[in-house]
Amino acid sequence: MPVIAIIGAGLIGRAWAFVFARAGMEVRVWDHDPAVLDRLGEGVAAMVAGTTPHDRAGPAPEGLTARIRPFATLEEALAGADLVQESGPEVLEIKQAIFADLDRLAPPEAVIASSSSALMVSHYADGLAGRWRCLVGHPVNPPHLVPVVELSPGPGTGERAMARAEEIYRAAGQVPVRLAREIDGFVLNRLQAVVLAESLRLIAEGLVTVEGLDDTVRHGLGRRWAFMGPMETIALNAPGGVADYLLRYGPMMARLVDDCARGEAFTPEVARQVGEAFPGLEGEAVRRRQAWRDGELAALDRHLADRRAAAAHD
Amino acid sequence: MPVIAIIGAGLIGRAWAFVFARAGMEVRVWDHDPAVLDRLGEGVAAMVAGTTPHDRAGPAPEGLTARIRPFATLEEALAGADLVQESGPEVLEIKQAIFADLDRLAPPEAVIASSSSALMVSHYADGLAGRWRCLVGHPVNPPHLVPVVELSPGPGTGERAMARAEEIYRAAGQVPVRLAREIDGFVLNRLQAVVLAESLRLIAEGLVTVEGLDDTVRHGLGRRWAFMGPMETIALNAPGGVADYLLRYGPMMARLVDDCARGEAFTPEVARQVGEAFPGLEGEAVRRRQAWRDGELAALDRHLADRRAAAAHD
Repeated sequence: MPVIAIIGAGLIGRAWAFVFARAGMEVRVWDHDPAVLDRLGEGVAAMVAGTTPHDRAGPAPEGLTARIRPFATLEEALAGADLVQESGPEVLEIKQAIFADLDRLAPPEAVIASSSSALMVSHYADGLAGRWRCLVGHPVNPPHLVPVVELSPGPGTGERAMARAEEIYRAAGQVPVRLAREIDGFVLNRLQAVVLAESLRLIAEGLVTVEGLDDTVRHGLGRRWAFMGPMETIALNAPGGVADYLLRYGPMMARLVDDCARGEAFTPEVARQVGEAFPGLEGEAVRRRQAWRDGELAALDRHLADRRAAAAHD
Repeated sequence: MPVIAIIGAGLIGRAWAFVFARAGMEVRVWDHDPAVLDRLGEGVAAMVAGTTPHDRAGPAPEGLTARIRPFATLEEALAGADLVQESGPEVLEIKQAIFADLDRLAPPEAVIASSSSALMVSHYADGLAGRWRCLVGHPVNPPHLVPVVELSPGPGTGERAMARAEEIYRAAGQVPVRLAREIDGFVLNRLQAVVLAESLRLIAEGLVTVEGLDDTVRHGLGRRWAFMGPMETIALNAPGGVADYLLRYGPMMARLVDDCARGEAFTPEVARQVGEAFPGLEGEAVRRRQAWRDGELAALDRHLADRRAAAAHD
């Protein structure tokens, strides 16, 4: 069973700790801020409480909690680690400094993965002796309820490290998706970005309300995408499969895309306009609604897992 | 209880008939091809069989079937209709001809909605005396399992017709989303188009496999979008709500979008490449997999409805 070191115990780091411990792995946690480390147990307890009703805390929640241990120093947290999951601030200089430390202190064969969504691994690992073992393992928030992990190598990353990371994430119950090389935004945020741009543009132009936009996705597009991807969706939307679909609808889709929103759709005005559709949603109200979201994500994950199990049994 | 006329009894028309009859409405069906009309009962029976296990056939499936009646002539099918749902071929000349007939023959107060995804209502209703009552009511395939309906007016469409259509769709259990004016692709296909373009581009460039792309959505992005929209998703991804999110991540998102795929991503080469990821998926195999998809959509709709009911009860 691999040993995991979690470096940075904020929201994402804590959820990662939960993911690996839930799968039975030993998890060693460090944060540069002792106060954050002090709140680790409380954070894990909240995740156990939130996931247990949906059968998403693993077979033995007490054991899970006991497998997550905080350490006062980086050296101690890294001892014996097979995978180091770094979840620190998205600031280039901080990433560079922590990766230099991790490469110096982690066991020689340990894979070092960053949770970064905004920074590519080449920007902070290229100069390191151990660049071969550095990569991005980008989760979705929150990783204990949304299983995909994007694995992005840099130009210096070795296949052995990619394969080992993939194996460990899969053993932890996540769904690793490999990128062949690094690209700004990886895959998930590139797809999210184009949807956000076009959504904001349609809202800014007054074509649809914020609620109407969300309804179009949650009662429309998002239904199929929750259990198929966009590729299988189109493969099933024409009698002859994908090629038939793209022959029928490709020209229309291309026309729509040529006319779609660009980066200038992200304006302060539309931010205000969308904000007004969620009155009072800040601070404590955001946290309450996040708790609701997490409950729904857990319930949905269970639903989808039950459906897959039933299909496999048929 | 409104009376519905379904004009065109292919896949979409049949599913519309099911939607309205499930809600207790009388449904009168016509198709220019008598053979299609002959298969109506069989199609409805298949929908009843497919949805009953998921409690998606309404309170009394036998009554549902009895409320759907085929008629040999357009005139008979339109008698007493409050809403005419046209689901014929996506060919401009055919649409123009059928809308001229519908406007001439439908009861004077009936709303006439097209299921068209590709053609805007101004293109086939602008010259009609009754253009005030013509609009698009664009469903997702299949409408009896995915509830959103995009309501798009043309320049000649009256508010009264929009309000009446919205009321009837809502009474039928659908989720109507109003557009303020018509736009090519409406909202849903514009969002789908940008996702497809960027997906195809990443696949064509070898950055990610077809399966990896689909996994990124179905085990990632699509999870949140199945019960929240993209706007509520970002509202919950920063402590200060939407404005905070766009301040933090807007510049990165804008950068990604400025570099995103355009219409030229829809190439015959990538169509082949994606097709190869679904070997043998054509003809009967497509139909079998569509039946699987419909079962999953029904199960998901039930899950989401149960969650909403539980939340309302709390």
